[in-house]
Amino acid sequence: MDQRIVAEYILRTAGDPHRVADIIAGEQSSGTFIAIPGESEELKARSAATVDRLEEIEDSGLPMLPGAIGEAPRSYRMTLSWPLANVGPSLPNLLATLAGNLFELREVAGLKLVDLRLPPAFADRYPGPAFGVEGTRQLTGVVDRPVIGTIIKPSIGLNPAETAALVDQLCDGGIDFIKDDELQADGAICPFEERLAAVTTVIARHAERTGRKVMYAVNLTGEIDEMLRRHDQVEAAGGTCVMVSLNSVGLTGLTALRRHARLPIHAHRNGWGYLGRSPDNGWSYVAWQKIWRLAGVDHMHVNGLANKFWEPDDSVVASAKACLTPLSPARPDVVMPVFSSGQSVKQAEGTWRHLGSPDLIYCAGGGIVAHPSGIAAGVRSLREAWDAAMQGVPLQEAAAASPDLAVAVKTFA
Amino acid sequence: MDQRIVAEYILRTAGDPHRVADIIAGEQSSGTFIAIPGESEELKARSAATVDRLEEIEDSGLPMLPGAIGEAPRSYRMTLSWPLANVGPSLPNLLATLAGNLFELREVAGLKLVDLRLPPAFADRYPGPAFGVEGTRQLTGVVDRPVIGTIIKPSIGLNPAETAALVDQLCDGGIDFIKDDELQADGAICPFEERLAAVTTVIARHAERTGRKVMYAVNLTGEIDEMLRRHDQVEAAGGTCVMVSLNSVGLTGLTALRRHARLPIHAHRNGWGYLGRSPDNGWSYVAWQKIWRLAGVDHMHVNGLANKFWEPDDSVVASAKACLTPLSPARPDVVMPVFSSGQSVKQAEGTWRHLGSPDLIYCAGGGIVAHPSGIAAGVRSLREAWDAAMQGVPLQEAAAASPDLAVAVKTFA
Repeated sequence: MDQRIVAEYILRTAGDPHRVADIIAGEQSSGTFIAIPGESEELKARSAATVDRLEEIEDSGLPMLPGAIGEAPRSYRMTLSWPLANVGPSLPNLLATLAGNLFELREVAGLKLVDLRLPPAFADRYPGPAFGVEGTRQLTGVVDRPVIGTIIKPSIGLNPAETAALVDQLCDGGIDFIKDDELQADGAICPFEERLAAVTTVIARHAERTGRKVMYAVNLTGEIDEMLRRHDQVEAAGGTCVMVSLNSVGLTGLTALRRHARLPIHAHRNGWGYLGRSPDNGWSYVAWQKIWRLAGVDHMHVNGLANKFWEPDDSVVASAKACLTPLSPARPDVVMPVFSSGQSVKQAEGTWRHLGSPDLIYCAGGGIVAHPSGIAAGVRSLREAWDAAMQGVPLQEAAAASPDLAVAVKTFA
Repeated sequence: MDQRIVAEYILRTAGDPHRVADIIAGEQSSGTFIAIPGESEELKARSAATVDRLEEIEDSGLPMLPGAIGEAPRSYRMTLSWPLANVGPSLPNLLATLAGNLFELREVAGLKLVDLRLPPAFADRYPGPAFGVEGTRQLTGVVDRPVIGTIIKPSIGLNPAETAALVDQLCDGGIDFIKDDELQADGAICPFEERLAAVTTVIARHAERTGRKVMYAVNLTGEIDEMLRRHDQVEAAGGTCVMVSLNSVGLTGLTALRRHARLPIHAHRNGWGYLGRSPDNGWSYVAWQKIWRLAGVDHMHVNGLANKFWEPDDSVVASAKACLTPLSPARPDVVMPVFSSGQSVKQAEGTWRHLGSPDLIYCAGGGIVAHPSGIAAGVRSLREAWDAAMQGVPLQEAAAASPDLAVAVKTFA
């Protein structure tokens, strides 16, 4: 099986599951809606996808996707595989094979791509993360605890000088990591170059003071030539990270950036909702993040516990654990999971307890800048909340010993 | 409003719709989950998204998306707008603003992006299609009727020589347009360069005979450098079209290809199901195709009537009409809608009647190669079915005068 591409799906169908699985395998390889003369036994032997496993599981009882045929659908865990020779070690073409037309079949009442396994040829061709967990720790100087970060807030509307003034206060408070919001890239209010210059000047000044450089993930999302040029500008300005919105640039844009980059790539997943929120259509995060890790991102957003979005905690924890699970023994390609979305002092303990690893970036935006005692107090309180969590000290007990943390607990809890 | 970005959504929510619309507008501009000191009135005036329209419409009665709060959701048509200055004329960053985190909000029980309108600055920056309808007609030599096309079938598994032999028969039958299947790109069984050489040799020979060159949309989907190199190889081989899977390469990859290309770009939408099939999550095709047209594709897949997939005919017709509707008077950017998926002689009349335009590419794969009298008969029958439709001759009547068409009607109807 080493030379086969394997994908697992949750399939809902009202039809005979074996027949429907065969239709899907056919649609995604050598078959079509009618028997055709060219589909010989020899051709099928070399190119047909095969149904390797089909096992009934509990059904959700939800309505079927529109246009699905039949009644009373049931659910199945289905494994398909393809010869590597159909596709070659090409991630873009892999997508058309694993996640192409099959979602549209009328026999399909629901379909989620939940996992995938690729032959080693993909790791031979794609570089994976250049920095990942270890490289990020080296650049930030943060050892044995999470990287404490923030998102510039307001997300959009600050000009470069206002952004730099905010960064100054964040550095004063001891922040490890700062990222632009995904809405902030290169609009007229806050152009990329002016923002980069203003922020990196402030960060460099603090680095001289502390001996440790705050990592700033500057959002360079744009067209490919722009991104490569901006990457070089970030590097020239002494920056240590670039950020990109994955669903904005797409897979080949990310790969082009990765092949050019000499800095870690902070990957934002905005738009994930339309790919992953439907219970019966689209992608699981576990499958999706494998593609991007192979392509070479270093940090992957995973939402956060008790977030402002829809996602339950167990799903967030599974996503973060997936980012830290090796893709293969030879090429682990583990990346930093990034916790973000309504995060504050209140989720530190739970995040630590559920993940069981300090290898993460913990980002609070409003959870820092809205601290009533100011931004530096916001940063300090978050550091204290994490210290308490990792030392097993209850949050309320830690808060009793720190005015900043006490105010944060009162404000955000 | 000329300098504002406008998007329309269908929103489902169980909450107060005005409050929820404000939360969405805030999340996608200057707000977050908590009031923050930096979000001044002045900043909001320059950067906040506004809710321009909110109107209740009939609700579907479906279950809410997972994690949605409240009960008894209702549905609304919601229009939001943003200052151009937030984003600038950048399509990738536009995606993060229009289609970013908002799908994940817990207040959202369902959300579809159904339309968008962009300031002229986008058309100033992005080229739109270089060929579109008129350029495709010039290159194919097809005037005043649909371009009759096919997909190489079996989709995958033929080697270059077998592919070329099939193309030979298709050219003998008088085909206008041939495309690779989206599963066929550059696997070991049918490498790109060998396939290109074999197929273009056959096409050139027939062009000498007929004075008209069959357009071959060769699937060059791959990494960016590969695609640009392959484009040049296609041009050097005398080819007149390239094909790309949009969801495989992503937006910046398509833009890079368009800026380099001197040939029409045939855009495949495989994967559309996970973006568009859910009734209450994701994209409408009407909104989605506008992005790609502006970026510069020439042909857009729209499925087909009575297709093998889930989509009802009215949705297919709306998609095709959208492709032929000008984006603006100054820059129409109309593209050829491509009908494909289970198409045969039986859908010609209905397609003509519903679309009311001959500006389309009509692709039959199995509908040609599975013709019992052979491939050339398959092509001829399809041409005859379209001639009959456009002349108002009933299919059965036309079939009585043509053995090829009679066999096709019997086989596919």
